[in-house]
Amino acid sequence: MRMAELSERSGTPVPTIKYYLREGLLPRGERTGRNQARYSEEHLRRLRLVRALTDVGGLPIAAVREILSRVDSPGTSTHRLLGHTLASLPPPVKESGDVDEEDVKRVQDMAGRLGWHVYPGTRKAIALAEVVATYRRAGHPLSDTVLDRYAAVAEHTARVDLDVIAGISETDEILESTVVHIVLGDTLMAVLRRLAQTNESARRSGAVADDG
Amino acid sequence: MRMAELSERSGTPVPTIKYYLREGLLPRGERTGRNQARYSEEHLRRLRLVRALTDVGGLPIAAVREILSRVDSPGTSTHRLLGHTLASLPPPVKESGDVDEEDVKRVQDMAGRLGWHVYPGTRKAIALAEVVATYRRAGHPLSDTVLDRYAAVAEHTARVDLDVIAGISETDEILESTVVHIVLGDTLMAVLRRLAQTNESARRSGAVADDG
Repeated sequence: MRMAELSERSGTPVPTIKYYLREGLLPRGERTGRNQARYSEEHLRRLRLVRALTDVGGLPIAAVREILSRVDSPGTSTHRLLGHTLASLPPPVKESGDVDEEDVKRVQDMAGRLGWHVYPGTRKAIALAEVVATYRRAGHPLSDTVLDRYAAVAEHTARVDLDVIAGISETDEILESTVVHIVLGDTLMAVLRRLAQTNESARRSGAVADDG
Repeated sequence: MRMAELSERSGTPVPTIKYYLREGLLPRGERTGRNQARYSEEHLRRLRLVRALTDVGGLPIAAVREILSRVDSPGTSTHRLLGHTLASLPPPVKESGDVDEEDVKRVQDMAGRLGWHVYPGTRKAIALAEVVATYRRAGHPLSDTVLDRYAAVAEHTARVDLDVIAGISETDEILESTVVHIVLGDTLMAVLRRLAQTNESARRSGAVADDG
């Protein structure tokens, strides 16, 4: 297909496609004339993956390039690739740097109680310490019991996430689907949680849900 | 206490306190002189509630005023108050209005399968339809099975939420705690989910977590 068709089928503007070509995120098409090239279904698939990683996943170009180079290197196992992509996705919290020793320790203690591997100093561990600190500063500190219960629910969610991803077989598809599910999943869970709260609150009071 | 102390103890600037007084969100203090008034612990508690509703919960002043009038009307049951506050909290998704019949029907079908009361046309029902539509448009539609599994996890989360809230006895405290837990809880769950995914992915591949 010509670039115009690639643009239309992927919903990506032509200047963006040209930018990806220059940055090496998308391989060049097969040259068919002085100013023309032909693109394949392979290009379309790769383009969709790049869009998912940048637009949905919010990854910087350098991180996308690294993930793609792993996709293309023979012998990279799907699980390593998946692990790397999961690790690259930025945690959905702004880093304020306003975290105490105490918050960092609480994250490590929680990981210990649950048998999770959480390396101190990594972005995700710091992100969790930030959230724990925010509760504390808002005057409603999370108890260990409550934190552990939420973590147990998160473990259930992650199992659903990984099951969904495991059902997909093409490497490009796995990564694209991972990014879409992980990132959109935050909003999905937040909305479902609101509905479930209203419902659970009504159930406990014996009333019908007063859903606004 | 004087207004300066009220400001310091609540972390609220004096002009903001004056604004709340004018808007009727905070009752006037006891007059002690021409330009002076005395405020009580009651004022401090109410101020913290107003801050939680506006800053953390993102509620408009009109919604805050309505919740406060319910708090103050004798005979309002805690469960009705809680239900109203949960219903007032905006769903964490921007409304695009770009939802098909099909998406709306899927939300209703899901609610039917789970035995949830979800009234069509309410903000939360529309928010969920929007998220379902986003997955579909991104080329990764959610299956019924996956949607139901996520909803089941959300139900678990809501039970933890309600248990936490049920442990608090003062009405003002319940509302403040509800808003803080519900709103910060979205971020908490998203961060915990990221950690759990990395961990679950490593567990399934038999490797040690490569947490970034």
